[in-house]
Amino acid sequence: MRILIAGAKGTVGQAAVKELSRRHEIVTAGRTSGDVTVDLMDADSIRAMFEKIGKVDAVIATAGHVHFGPLAAMTPEQFRKGLDDKLMGQVNLVLLGHAFVNDGGSFTLTSGVLDRDPVRAGANAAAVNGAIGAFVKSAAIEMPRGIRINAVSPGLLEESAEKYDGFFPGHEPVSSARVGLAYAKSVDGGLTGQIIIVE
Amino acid sequence: MRILIAGAKGTVGQAAVKELSRRHEIVTAGRTSGDVTVDLMDADSIRAMFEKIGKVDAVIATAGHVHFGPLAAMTPEQFRKGLDDKLMGQVNLVLLGHAFVNDGGSFTLTSGVLDRDPVRAGANAAAVNGAIGAFVKSAAIEMPRGIRINAVSPGLLEESAEKYDGFFPGHEPVSSARVGLAYAKSVDGGLTGQIIIVE
Repeated sequence: MRILIAGAKGTVGQAAVKELSRRHEIVTAGRTSGDVTVDLMDADSIRAMFEKIGKVDAVIATAGHVHFGPLAAMTPEQFRKGLDDKLMGQVNLVLLGHAFVNDGGSFTLTSGVLDRDPVRAGANAAAVNGAIGAFVKSAAIEMPRGIRINAVSPGLLEESAEKYDGFFPGHEPVSSARVGLAYAKSVDGGLTGQIIIVE
Repeated sequence: MRILIAGAKGTVGQAAVKELSRRHEIVTAGRTSGDVTVDLMDADSIRAMFEKIGKVDAVIATAGHVHFGPLAAMTPEQFRKGLDDKLMGQVNLVLLGHAFVNDGGSFTLTSGVLDRDPVRAGANAAAVNGAIGAFVKSAAIEMPRGIRINAVSPGLLEESAEKYDGFFPGHEPVSSARVGLAYAKSVDGGLTGQIIIVE
């Protein structure tokens, strides 16, 4: 299977690469690194990426930033940043990329724990995650040519626990190996329209 | 109690007005009608509205459009339209309006059935609804001064069933009276961080 992973250099992306590269051909994409570079907020950049790499069997998106900050001081511009980046970036990949996915292929997007288990300063992340989960559930009933679509929703990764120390009180970090397995479940399994939770 | 209802002229807005006006003072707001006009996508317009009407005890948002259309033909621009309108419009009202809500007051946003019970052509609506639900769940733990925040998620209203005939197969329409009660549950009750489903 030939798999595009957008956001391959990130912590979650590396977990997906590690698990899937053992048995599949991986094409890595990133803002500034990878086999191909792409700006997921730019439709032309996404189209150029697919024209360059050609057809794939699976697309995984592990890219996207959100705004973290106290709700009472959050501005509309900060909130929109998370929508533009993590949400629209991943949605753009689906809307513009499905024609480049082979029959029976799959998309796997990435949400996160904060819509089901919120923390302070995480309202933008929660909204973006909730949107991604609902999008895959709905998009799954319309995907053409047997293409499946799921989201992986990982808890705080062990690798990120130190960086976010204090922001996720009581959250039990998950191993990158278990997060990698969730991407395998989506790509190699038969699920569609599911939020695959790792916690 | 003094209650601002943004989107009061819509089908859902009218349901909220009818239920709540029996015992509360209602200030209606809309794009082109109401006691005050407001463009929820424009921060300055929202600020001007609150400056004009002053403090309230509750804010209800029943406003916002999304894009309906087949996923395979959906463009990023169409998808973004729903984010800008229904999602950012309601989020803007919270981010810019909480300072105008009295201690112990409340926000009630409006999502909808399509994130939990999707239909074809509804992927944008699903994403927006999912985002609103997750936002209120997360925002609730950070609202200042005891202000609560919930979302009402109504099924297809009886009044809209003819307009959307064929688009919601098998969905059982709900009465506007029951939808109105959900807003009363949020405003007059003690819930916070909840998605109040009417189906």
